[in-house]
Amino acid sequence: MSLNNIRIVLIETSHPGNIGSVARAMLTMGITDLCLVNPRHFPDKQATIMASGAEHILQQARIVSSVQDAIADCTLVIGTSAREQRSVPWPLMSAREAGTFIAEHSTTGKTAILFGRESSGLTNKELESCQYLLSIPVNPDFRSLNIASAVQVIAYECAVALEQQPVNTQQRRELATAKDMQNYYRHLEKTLIDIRYMDPDKPRLLMRKLRCLYGRIQLTKSEVNLLRGILSAAQGIKFIPRNQRKPADDTRSLSED
Amino acid sequence: MSLNNIRIVLIETSHPGNIGSVARAMLTMGITDLCLVNPRHFPDKQATIMASGAEHILQQARIVSSVQDAIADCTLVIGTSAREQRSVPWPLMSAREAGTFIAEHSTTGKTAILFGRESSGLTNKELESCQYLLSIPVNPDFRSLNIASAVQVIAYECAVALEQQPVNTQQRRELATAKDMQNYYRHLEKTLIDIRYMDPDKPRLLMRKLRCLYGRIQLTKSEVNLLRGILSAAQGIKFIPRNQRKPADDTRSLSED
Repeated sequence: MSLNNIRIVLIETSHPGNIGSVARAMLTMGITDLCLVNPRHFPDKQATIMASGAEHILQQARIVSSVQDAIADCTLVIGTSAREQRSVPWPLMSAREAGTFIAEHSTTGKTAILFGRESSGLTNKELESCQYLLSIPVNPDFRSLNIASAVQVIAYECAVALEQQPVNTQQRRELATAKDMQNYYRHLEKTLIDIRYMDPDKPRLLMRKLRCLYGRIQLTKSEVNLLRGILSAAQGIKFIPRNQRKPADDTRSLSED
Repeated sequence: MSLNNIRIVLIETSHPGNIGSVARAMLTMGITDLCLVNPRHFPDKQATIMASGAEHILQQARIVSSVQDAIADCTLVIGTSAREQRSVPWPLMSAREAGTFIAEHSTTGKTAILFGRESSGLTNKELESCQYLLSIPVNPDFRSLNIASAVQVIAYECAVALEQQPVNTQQRRELATAKDMQNYYRHLEKTLIDIRYMDPDKPRLLMRKLRCLYGRIQLTKSEVNLLRGILSAAQGIKFIPRNQRKPADDTRSLSED
């Protein structure tokens, strides 16, 4: 599986809770390879708590003392950055572009995605180890993206790109055919006349409006049957002698909410 | 700005820290409208700490006691769900599809995105207030997506989709609000009982199916009025003495095509 070819590298992370949250975020997206470069406090109880079920990601995490060790076996190295302008114009990708790029690459080799310190990000020297920079588009007035949130978004983009197909867990539904809809509209029109909502001599645009409304839904066959059952129930009552009905005009007003 | 038309609704959140993390996640993507339905502990110091610079989102958050109050002025209501199978096949979108859909919608009306309890998500009753369900694709072996991470991914998808949105040339239509729809469903249910299509003692899944059906359409206000006019016309006939009606069972079969 290509997700195995994606490594998350955290550099000098200050808060162990963040390491745990990152592990959890990774695992929700199916990424399991975590490498920690000189973490301040690790292992740590707070990391375990925040991993919240993803503790094995922490247990199997590799701890190294340099970025070079973390990325040695990788064929693609991408740095993350919140800053937009740098003195050296590094090739910059959005998270979405990076997801696609990494997904393509992960069939052939390992990718490392580098996350810098919570306070100051990656150093220029660390950036020089990267082939590309990745930036998540953020609110220019509030760039304070939590490190685990950044990992979550990027891991999500990689997973979606690897899926290639949009998730569709929806059950297959048998949609109504044009003929089903034709029969439905005919039934609806007849019912509207029967319940005296529509005057067949002055139909106005009523049926067109209703076609416009129901046409948008993509009804299933069973839904058409349900709606037609309701129409039939409404029609059933029409067999009452007309002279005993209330005047139609009184029945057209909307009921109170 | 269309991001102003997106509301994050958190329902009965247990951990105040999560509320703070959600506020931070929202603001990084430029979303500021937060509504809390019966939060367990709020305001709370832990929420403020986790907001980490986004405290004003918490301060201006609206606290309400029902989902209906949270969504009353919204014209699109989307529920988030980690579960895949449900008895009624609600229209399900991926986070990406939802982002695009919400971006398109946000030029004309407000969208509420509902997040359920950390432990148990949304109840079926709450799901019935939704027109669509949104599911973030996750690792089937570890579905434990933190609520703030889920908000982060969805807010990110909305922000990216809004960035990419083409100029909307679609005609402005005044969409029905959640309150309009609530009144419509109440009227519909009463009518179905009146015309003896629905037995109030054995309602089965009828109203849920109809909510699922009409929820997909994005009805306009004038369409809701049209449909309610039809309901009133159908109800008008109910005042005929019962002993002169045909038996209800005979009227439930579909008419011939």
